[in-house]
Amino acid sequence: MPDFAAIPKWINGQLGDRLPVSDRGLAYGDGVFETLRVVQGRPVLFDYHLERLQLGLQRLQIKHDWAALENEIMAYPGCQQDGVVKLLVTRGQGGRGYGTQNIQGPTRVFSWHELPVYPDSHYTHGISVYSCRQSLSANTSLAGLKHLNRLEQVMARQEWGDDYQEGLMLDGEGNVIEGVFSNLFVVQKGTLLTPDLKQSGVAGTMRRWLLECFAGSGYQVDVGQVTLQDIRLADEWFFCNSVYGIWPVRQWEDRTWIVGNITRQAQQWIKDRWQF
Amino acid sequence: MPDFAAIPKWINGQLGDRLPVSDRGLAYGDGVFETLRVVQGRPVLFDYHLERLQLGLQRLQIKHDWAALENEIMAYPGCQQDGVVKLLVTRGQGGRGYGTQNIQGPTRVFSWHELPVYPDSHYTHGISVYSCRQSLSANTSLAGLKHLNRLEQVMARQEWGDDYQEGLMLDGEGNVIEGVFSNLFVVQKGTLLTPDLKQSGVAGTMRRWLLECFAGSGYQVDVGQVTLQDIRLADEWFFCNSVYGIWPVRQWEDRTWIVGNITRQAQQWIKDRWQF
Repeated sequence: MPDFAAIPKWINGQLGDRLPVSDRGLAYGDGVFETLRVVQGRPVLFDYHLERLQLGLQRLQIKHDWAALENEIMAYPGCQQDGVVKLLVTRGQGGRGYGTQNIQGPTRVFSWHELPVYPDSHYTHGISVYSCRQSLSANTSLAGLKHLNRLEQVMARQEWGDDYQEGLMLDGEGNVIEGVFSNLFVVQKGTLLTPDLKQSGVAGTMRRWLLECFAGSGYQVDVGQVTLQDIRLADEWFFCNSVYGIWPVRQWEDRTWIVGNITRQAQQWIKDRWQF
Repeated sequence: MPDFAAIPKWINGQLGDRLPVSDRGLAYGDGVFETLRVVQGRPVLFDYHLERLQLGLQRLQIKHDWAALENEIMAYPGCQQDGVVKLLVTRGQGGRGYGTQNIQGPTRVFSWHELPVYPDSHYTHGISVYSCRQSLSANTSLAGLKHLNRLEQVMARQEWGDDYQEGLMLDGEGNVIEGVFSNLFVVQKGTLLTPDLKQSGVAGTMRRWLLECFAGSGYQVDVGQVTLQDIRLADEWFFCNSVYGIWPVRQWEDRTWIVGNITRQAQQWIKDRWQF
């Protein structure tokens, strides 16, 4: 894409791309973020992203004026330009130490990025999935949020190169939780399973939307414990997020799958709604 | 302290106090830090801090030239000025996404801070300790490191105001692990206990030094599981870190303690070595 299409970054509503090193986002990962796909000048699942952002700020007790923040997000030109927008909100600038008194904040960083280019085959034929050794830790107060403490994902992603398109992550007990950058659904005999995320994982916006679509179309969906055996016995399974949509799984460990009907149905819902 | 004594921050060996927002320290907490007390122009436990920093960089697979980094740290004027030095090293600048290809790094941020002022009574009579509801999650690949994913400490510290001087943190199973910004030792009938940190917690440099002092002086020290019952039955117990040294515990839940002999002995070792 030509340079002239690039949208400049905003910091606290102003053009800018540098932050003071005293920001608590850097010091402690003390903040949250959202990654939105923009299609035909509108962010996909905008409301769901905003709701999760607000929930994260509340859960972390980051003081903010939600109406002003929402207006600032709406005004960011990146939200009207097809591509990917990243919204990052930290508690702000503060001194050394974990205490949250005397913080100047919150800090808002908005940036726009070109849509990553993935081969069509990820979508049409499915992906090959790696089994990560890095596990996801359990913590009910942080589970579900898209906070800035993401070392587990960074460590997991370093385990493989280009041979796989996603990595499967388990919790410390060996339960299936999610991909490194996606959620997942497993289909067994027409019933869908997706991991409960009360202890670990990120509650993705596309996962939420698909849960509603499946429920609205009469499918049975169980949100609960998912084991490796559930995946071995799956008739079909897929990963999802709000940037790429749905990638069916073609290969994992010693098993292969062809793209199943329920996966195709879910892909069609996304195509009907957003044409991607 | 007068302003003229303040030491300016360094970023990558140059004067500076702002970082690009594309730095992975901000995006994912993808880095490590150290906080060193400088006494009489020399950092306390310098070697132990450097060893933990190096271990963290290795464990996170952050590419770096250790010799150059060590030289840069040695050259930072803050390391010769009494106060507190914070060394923060991130993986560097990179694009969106967890992958670690094409990163420009590492990023080094060094800052100097005045020594926090604590009342003498914390040291002489002991502190009052809060029981945190926020737990510490378990993850063997990250345990022990002083990495930048510190939301659990931030959440814990928000639970109380000024009524307590430290907060006791447990893991998900209810085992005692550490304070919010300190490690801890428990004394029962002349034997010391300190929590094992293979699953959770930060392996403090003062904890390491005290473990060596106790062992060298013929004390029995068990590094293992510590329960709340162990604390209830403690004859004395104390918190430690390399900035404030040792704070005995005076009060926790429905129990009070007076400062014990082993705690005083450990305080004396620090005074003999560094005069604080």
